Amino acid sequence: MMTFLQGDVERLGQRAREAGRVWAQASTQQKNAALLAMAGAIEERAEEILAANRADVEAARLAGAAVAVIDRLRVDDRRLQAMADGIRNVALLHDPVGEIIKEWTRPNGLRISKVRVPIGVIGFIYESRPNVTSDAAALCLKTGNAIILRGGSEAFHSNMAIAQALRRGCESADLPVDGVQLVPTTDRAAVQALAELDRYVDLLIPRGGRSLIERVTALARMPVIKHFDGICHVYVDRDADPQMAQEIVLNAKVQRPGVCNAVETLLVHEAVAPTFLPRCAQALAERHVELRGDPATCRILGALARPAHEEDWRIEYLDLILSIRVVSDLEAAIRHIEEYGSHHTDTVVTDNEQTADRFLRAVDSAVVLWNASTRFNDGGEFGFGAEVGISTDRLHARGPMGLEELTTYKYLVRGSGQVRE
Amino acid sequence: MMTFLQGDVERLGQRAREAGRVWAQASTQQKNAALLAMAGAIEERAEEILAANRADVEAARLAGAAVAVIDRLRVDDRRLQAMADGIRNVALLHDPVGEIIKEWTRPNGLRISKVRVPIGVIGFIYESRPNVTSDAAALCLKTGNAIILRGGSEAFHSNMAIAQALRRGCESADLPVDGVQLVPTTDRAAVQALAELDRYVDLLIPRGGRSLIERVTALARMPVIKHFDGICHVYVDRDADPQMAQEIVLNAKVQRPGVCNAVETLLVHEAVAPTFLPRCAQALAERHVELRGDPATCRILGALARPAHEEDWRIEYLDLILSIRVVSDLEAAIRHIEEYGSHHTDTVVTDNEQTADRFLRAVDSAVVLWNASTRFNDGGEFGFGAEVGISTDRLHARGPMGLEELTTYKYLVRGSGQVRE
Repeated sequence: MMTFLQGDVERLGQRAREAGRVWAQASTQQKNAALLAMAGAIEERAEEILAANRADVEAARLAGAAVAVIDRLRVDDRRLQAMADGIRNVALLHDPVGEIIKEWTRPNGLRISKVRVPIGVIGFIYESRPNVTSDAAALCLKTGNAIILRGGSEAFHSNMAIAQALRRGCESADLPVDGVQLVPTTDRAAVQALAELDRYVDLLIPRGGRSLIERVTALARMPVIKHFDGICHVYVDRDADPQMAQEIVLNAKVQRPGVCNAVETLLVHEAVAPTFLPRCAQALAERHVELRGDPATCRILGALARPAHEEDWRIEYLDLILSIRVVSDLEAAIRHIEEYGSHHTDTVVTDNEQTADRFLRAVDSAVVLWNASTRFNDGGEFGFGAEVGISTDRLHARGPMGLEELTTYKYLVRGSGQVRE
Repeated sequence: MMTFLQGDVERLGQRAREAGRVWAQASTQQKNAALLAMAGAIEERAEEILAANRADVEAARLAGAAVAVIDRLRVDDRRLQAMADGIRNVALLHDPVGEIIKEWTRPNGLRISKVRVPIGVIGFIYESRPNVTSDAAALCLKTGNAIILRGGSEAFHSNMAIAQALRRGCESADLPVDGVQLVPTTDRAAVQALAELDRYVDLLIPRGGRSLIERVTALARMPVIKHFDGICHVYVDRDADPQMAQEIVLNAKVQRPGVCNAVETLLVHEAVAPTFLPRCAQALAERHVELRGDPATCRILGALARPAHEEDWRIEYLDLILSIRVVSDLEAAIRHIEEYGSHHTDTVVTDNEQTADRFLRAVDSAVVLWNASTRFNDGGEFGFGAEVGISTDRLHARGPMGLEELTTYKYLVRGSGQVRE
């Protein structure tokens, strides 16, 4: 591996900035042509990509990596095809760049338009899945943003081969290839150099474990959009339809337990807990969900639940485990969510509109639902077509992050010679 | 001065978070009542505020502060009244909280609403003007955000007295007083503690000199909205109306030269430079503007201009100085702005719509104008009613920052029992 100095990262950024200026001005047609060429290049260079990936997988195996890590790392024909198809899907989406967000005329005749524009250069720091390389590059190209990719070291050769194919695609569509660049080293110092490059990088998106995200956030001089844990709640109100509540709880926990929008804690109003909990717990147990309850829950459920500890309310299990707490009323549920939740996704199940309104208003989470599964906090389910992720930040992008969230705005002001008095 | 530890700043943040939850839920009526009570409290406590300010001014004078610093620091009856009136003005503005930004229904019947909500707790770090204390607190209260104020050390007693009055106002309107807090120390370590308090502070807004902003940005773990320099340009095209162009240049330079949206560099198309520049330079000289030109400009203007150096293109003069460069065409003007500008405010003067469109599209600045003075990049001129400042950041808030930019959003999803397949 070559030594990679700060100056090299700086040159990377400079080239991305220059290419980004051209990408920002490219027409939708031109960007879509480049996306199709990228997808084609992935297919044409399949052999090189698969060979590079075999080398990565072999190295990971020799290094004793866990089975799950090797599975995430592996690219086979099917996954390669999914990458190419994913890029083609992005070409079909609506291009948000140039959209007029708002427009008004001032009394002095100035016409002000707030229009969507690319952010500029986006730094993408991620871990083991090589498909993130093509997904992220496609979303950035569609929105006219240059991208600097920094993947996990275990996927280094795979990512280099994929990035090379993507650049070839740009080239054949006459867009500057430096709009997609991969940091050509696994040296950890490169992450710091990237995080300090606020002159050329406008936004950093770290995707991966908490420690990676925290490290990047502490170092970064530019805005960072974070994708942290989801400690999501379902609150079953006294006025809930018990059948609906049970289906929502089951779906939110079992349909895909390993994701951030799965429910981790069930809160149940004390008035309905004795009737609701036994049936619901039975259904959960049949689906192999381990239940951890507060004392009231344990009294109701007996052997079906084991006692929850204080830390259970703060854990993102990402597994077939559910903590359950009986609460005295709506306000107690809201307080629990405020105290222990991660402001990600929370649902109230109730037939009472006033209760729902209070919950929707008071719970300070990116997505707050009424009578629906937490699993709907998702770019696809929101109709965004593609998703960068689910932001746990409050500013710029909150909740599902689609193409619009990869843009910012500028103001165009059209006058006829106006000056200020 | 007491010693002020990290733990104290943390408690400050914790109290702000708790108060902020109540502020976030307060009705517009309640917030407006609190604003009026704040304005009243400023007037009632005028003597205390003026006495505290006299102490600050006296200390600054003894410390040998510059006349300009003392002038910014001083609060007299008129300025105190302006503070109270400023708060009352904020009460009259439209409350953006609760506004539905977007709403749609998914094929499965889920109704999704994107609604405006407060950001949470905002840290405001600023320098000498004590009126920022009341201005910033009023804007935050109106938008349901708690605020932690950290003013300049030279204005410490003034700021404490003002903050005390503002808290009294909150109290009499039954809103928790800890929604407005001032860091009760001038210890510089408190800034670092605040910047690291991402658990309780959602956004930092540093207002002041470049070194303050850079220091805060380097330390901050939460988003920062920066207000940096404006190196603003006027480009006079070959198809410009010369009279209009001259009026715009004069207004942009002379009407208030010390602000960030004043023009610093004039770019003139070479085809019109020989006719346009002499008259325009004459008018500028009559208003005591010093001209610094590139060689082509100096050839045309002779003794009216002195030679500009490379660094002149990168200076925010904030003074009656203007650099001038003759450019070969529109694209050269765009390149100059890209290379030397600060992406703040840039104007094209032309009668050619195609030229204007190209300029508006290609120039990557917060506000790009056609046939209007750069001085219109301003919250008041945009019709925002009040202004936090002019953001030089690209994300969340770009350009004039009004009440809307002190809010974020969340998604409310209303269903009828939907679960994911």
